Amino acid sequence: MFLPILFIFSLLSFSSRALVQDFCVADLSLPDGPAGYPCKKPAKVTVNDFVYSALGVAGNTNNLIKAAVTPAFTAQFPGLNGLGLSLARLDLAVGGVVPMHTHPGGNEVIFVVQGTITAGFISSANAVYFKTLNKGDTMIFPQGLLHFQVNSGKTPGLVLVSFSSPSPGLQILDYALFANNLPSDLVEKTTFLDDAQVKKLKGVLGGTG
Amino acid sequence: MFLPILFIFSLLSFSSRALVQDFCVADLSLPDGPAGYPCKKPAKVTVNDFVYSALGVAGNTNNLIKAAVTPAFTAQFPGLNGLGLSLARLDLAVGGVVPMHTHPGGNEVIFVVQGTITAGFISSANAVYFKTLNKGDTMIFPQGLLHFQVNSGKTPGLVLVSFSSPSPGLQILDYALFANNLPSDLVEKTTFLDDAQVKKLKGVLGGTG
Amino acid sequence: MFLPILFIFSLLSFSSRALVQDFCVADLSLPDGPAGYPCKKPAKVTVNDFVYSALGVAGNTNNLIKAAVTPAFTAQFPGLNGLGLSLARLDLAVGGVVPMHTHPGGNEVIFVVQGTITAGFISSANAVYFKTLNKGDTMIFPQGLLHFQVNSGKTPGLVLVSFSSPSPGLQILDYALFANNLPSDLVEKTTFLDDAQVKKLKGVLGGTG
Amino acid sequence: MFLPILFIFSLLSFSSRALVQDFCVADLSLPDGPAGYPCKKPAKVTVNDFVYSALGVAGNTNNLIKAAVTPAFTAQFPGLNGLGLSLARLDLAVGGVVPMHTHPGGNEVIFVVQGTITAGFISSANAVYFKTLNKGDTMIFPQGLLHFQVNSGKTPGLVLVSFSSPSPGLQILDYALFANNLPSDLVEKTTFLDDAQVKKLKGVLGGTG
Amino acid sequence: MFLPILFIFSLLSFSSRALVQDFCVADLSLPDGPAGYPCKKPAKVTVNDFVYSALGVAGNTNNLIKAAVTPAFTAQFPGLNGLGLSLARLDLAVGGVVPMHTHPGGNEVIFVVQGTITAGFISSANAVYFKTLNKGDTMIFPQGLLHFQVNSGKTPGLVLVSFSSPSPGLQILDYALFANNLPSDLVEKTTFLDDAQVKKLKGVLGGTG
Amino acid sequence: MFLPILFIFSLLSFSSRALVQDFCVADLSLPDGPAGYPCKKPAKVTVNDFVYSALGVAGNTNNLIKAAVTPAFTAQFPGLNGLGLSLARLDLAVGGVVPMHTHPGGNEVIFVVQGTITAGFISSANAVYFKTLNKGDTMIFPQGLLHFQVNSGKTPGLVLVSFSSPSPGLQILDYALFANNLPSDLVEKTTFLDDAQVKKLKGVLGGTG
Repeated sequence: MFLPILFIFSLLSFSSRALVQDFCVADLSLPDGPAGYPCKKPAKVTVNDFVYSALGVAGNTNNLIKAAVTPAFTAQFPGLNGLGLSLARLDLAVGGVVPMHTHPGGNEVIFVVQGTITAGFISSANAVYFKTLNKGDTMIFPQGLLHFQVNSGKTPGLVLVSFSSPSPGLQILDYALFANNLPSDLVEKTTFLDDAQVKKLKGVLGGTG
Repeated sequence: MFLPILFIFSLLSFSSRALVQDFCVADLSLPDGPAGYPCKKPAKVTVNDFVYSALGVAGNTNNLIKAAVTPAFTAQFPGLNGLGLSLARLDLAVGGVVPMHTHPGGNEVIFVVQGTITAGFISSANAVYFKTLNKGDTMIFPQGLLHFQVNSGKTPGLVLVSFSSPSPGLQILDYALFANNLPSDLVEKTTFLDDAQVKKLKGVLGGTG
Repeated sequence: MFLPILFIFSLLSFSSRALVQDFCVADLSLPDGPAGYPCKKPAKVTVNDFVYSALGVAGNTNNLIKAAVTPAFTAQFPGLNGLGLSLARLDLAVGGVVPMHTHPGGNEVIFVVQGTITAGFISSANAVYFKTLNKGDTMIFPQGLLHFQVNSGKTPGLVLVSFSSPSPGLQILDYALFANNLPSDLVEKTTFLDDAQVKKLKGVLGGTG
Repeated sequence: MFLPILFIFSLLSFSSRALVQDFCVADLSLPDGPAGYPCKKPAKVTVNDFVYSALGVAGNTNNLIKAAVTPAFTAQFPGLNGLGLSLARLDLAVGGVVPMHTHPGGNEVIFVVQGTITAGFISSANAVYFKTLNKGDTMIFPQGLLHFQVNSGKTPGLVLVSFSSPSPGLQILDYALFANNLPSDLVEKTTFLDDAQVKKLKGVLGGTG
Repeated sequence: MFLPILFIFSLLSFSSRALVQDFCVADLSLPDGPAGYPCKKPAKVTVNDFVYSALGVAGNTNNLIKAAVTPAFTAQFPGLNGLGLSLARLDLAVGGVVPMHTHPGGNEVIFVVQGTITAGFISSANAVYFKTLNKGDTMIFPQGLLHFQVNSGKTPGLVLVSFSSPSPGLQILDYALFANNLPSDLVEKTTFLDDAQVKKLKGVLGGTG
Repeated sequence: MFLPILFIFSLLSFSSRALVQDFCVADLSLPDGPAGYPCKKPAKVTVNDFVYSALGVAGNTNNLIKAAVTPAFTAQFPGLNGLGLSLARLDLAVGGVVPMHTHPGGNEVIFVVQGTITAGFISSANAVYFKTLNKGDTMIFPQGLLHFQVNSGKTPGLVLVSFSSPSPGLQILDYALFANNLPSDLVEKTTFLDDAQVKKLKGVLGGTG
């Protein structure tokens, strides 16, 4: 026997009053806060807010590091706002290098889609954990620790990266030290690098001071 | 000996400078974010923002499931915003049923105010936990797991429900499967239900596709 | 057409490997940590770990405050461990009083099951929010703020209390000031209460020093 | 001019005293708690605790759903403990289906490594979000909501799955309803499915009661 | 050999697309939410948003309690917004007293910069923890518990205070009880203080009712 | 009129049953977990678990960097376990330097007790924020970002440091790069430093490989 139509109304009316935050697609036009961006109104959300295609396109590795990172963080993929995770695509041509860097806001796990990658990180206790990874391997890089990935094989590498935050951040060591206006004497005093070394890399990377 | 008036000013002035977020009554007119709604200005908050009376009124159980849920989530009771808990009232006429459902955003504990309720949930490990509860009994339903409540007694049931989130959400299984525009062939393919069964319930619940 | 038995094995084997923390019933015999107690092994968990009946029994209000609080925190109801909420039952005989107190670890919402209750709290900004509540009313008391409940009606009161923590704690003001060994001169110096008042209440409540 | 050896000792001694929780590789032999498992001693941690290779191996899709899920949760990959994310590999043969299911403990994002996948979820507000995804597409499935993935193409599909929790859980709808000892009358009463339908699927999936 | 300029562009362009929430300097002109205030636009943030000088100035202790608290919470130091910590400066003249109080929203640790301070707190279990501290000593006061600090030495005291929240709140016991419009009979009924005591302190502190 | 003794028993018995986690002094002899260490039994906790005196003693700056850091993290001050904050003392002789470093697990705020300190940090967006601070100044260093402190004055400096975690961690850049067994070619490839520079600093700092 069928349930009468009345059933529909009673539960539907509850459902819409109780309508709540399953998700919070970022409205990037409004200012963000400590927990992320304000939410787009649910009525304006479509399936396209949950789908992102840019990670399907190889980044341009025609550069000196022979590497490209394509992020899918909240800024690029607003559907991730408030959800506690994000992705990125990493292309490494033969000889490619993702230089020493940290993600101040999230833990990272990589999955090697293709290629041979030597990757590692250094802990607070100054222990070094590095290994050569093959297709299908997964490796963890804990939040805030210096780490790197290098294509150590003879074919291009493709890596899918997952983060434990929709906005994990990225601080590339060489950029932080040599590609801004931090005065050279402060760089030298706080890194013990030689003046010539600092000025050479500042020259290359466009740093001033 | 009395403290002079000076004492008042020195501490009061601190107190007002330090005035902070004891609570955050939702301003529902502004967009919410991952942590909830923006706060109403403290100066406009009154005791009525912390008091809600709708749970004192029995829901209308004159429907096919003979049950009614009256939520006091942030949307109904804005004082709960950001406080990490909410309530609901559940009325179950004789024979009443709260169909299989989940709360994707919070854990639940019920307290049986009156009546005899058979309630249960199924875990990720596919274990079934169900029991018949009497007046005064309390039962836990962990976040995101399918659960149900049935009036298995001979008198009306009244249940007070607490959640570990001010916006726990609600997904009613039959509604999710049969009361929207998810195509029947996808429902069938992903649930293994027979076509006739799916179409019958879609018919009753107003689903299309 | 039926699905062959093979289906069962493939998914079941996944299911058991993936078996995870839907819940974490406290093993109270082990030391707790900042997030709660270690979990009882899932295989030993039964439905009775999720059901608690003590809130169905009225507390003994045959005492001077004519009130009784019956908690269902992790210590009493281990199934709540890690779930972010807990309950308590509050019985208030005619004239009963729950004295000024705080819950340092959780927000609180009460639901008046029966009776007439005058309840209130004081904010950090020193604003007072109090109101007389009737059967069916709900009221919020934010974390860590002084609050009280008084039976202001002519019949016994019954209140169901929900907290946003499985272990919200309880600090009763008179107990903190007068029922321990905090020296009277420190009490007087830090509360501006008169020596006679402090000693009188220390006498009643068994405080020393 | 070189820094003397003394420099080493002064900072190293600090470093080791301050040695802290960059990571917390699970010691699965000890009981877990609400925040995860106790940590393996740092001195015993090697790079192999951060590398996992099982996601490189295709799951066996020679079953009725023509699909296989290979998880890398804390239970399989203890290095993820406490890090707030995990991965899984999903293989879908032609015609393969991951049936309707939820993850009660985490948000999910998939990346289509190869193939054509039709995937979708249903929200608390009963809105349906589904789309056909191609190689390189990414899609979000919010925590606790019913969702599915179907190979809608003509070649095998491979999907990498990321979760916002190291232990997101998994509740497969058909398993929850038909593959345990939940009595058929309770299933029927709480799902409105016909008795014949329930018994048919219980038969196939090995449910009792 | 030098890296070509191309390197700069490839990484910089990533860097700016990925630009994320290292910090969230409060825009105090917008309404706050449960997690804090919306963020000032990064482009408008300068080093001065991260530097605050008011804690360098002694508070005015020329009052009856001979004490002054100078907070650096989000409201005073917007750079702390969302960062999970804040500071305050406490000046205690000879004989100075910080009266019994709680911080409903954060744990506290003090560092005695100069002087001799007797400080203590009372736990939920009604245990008293107090001690006389000297220059260089550090002491913890857990969230929401009544505590006090008294200058028990012969020289002025200076204390630096750290909190585990950018907005820990402050509830001073005497203010909560005697410096607002909470009716005297409710104060007496819920504290067991004598009417004369209550009225005396209400008179001093400006309370009404 | 006095309250009878009965009052004591009724509330005390509640109090001890409800006894909960105001604090969780670390038992460092047990393994820690993602949320910290297991708690010492409350009955064994004394005021000395909440008091720590080592920050009162100047660190030995008789080393090449002319600086010393004295931490009060959970490992040194177990009372901080689970409380979300910690402290450290920083002594900087004339010319002293705290080299470029990060705290992967916490935000930092410093308070200059004496001296003149030039301090700064670099953001994910590669902006530099640095300033010369004087006695009484406070400065923020967000989690995971490279930062430094230099005594830029003519007198010794003393800085009190607060962190938003009881175990914020510490990664000193030169140590991570040059004081372990990370192979020189990997250092060079991932930092673009010259081989001579790397080997020189490896020599000084005891690095191998």
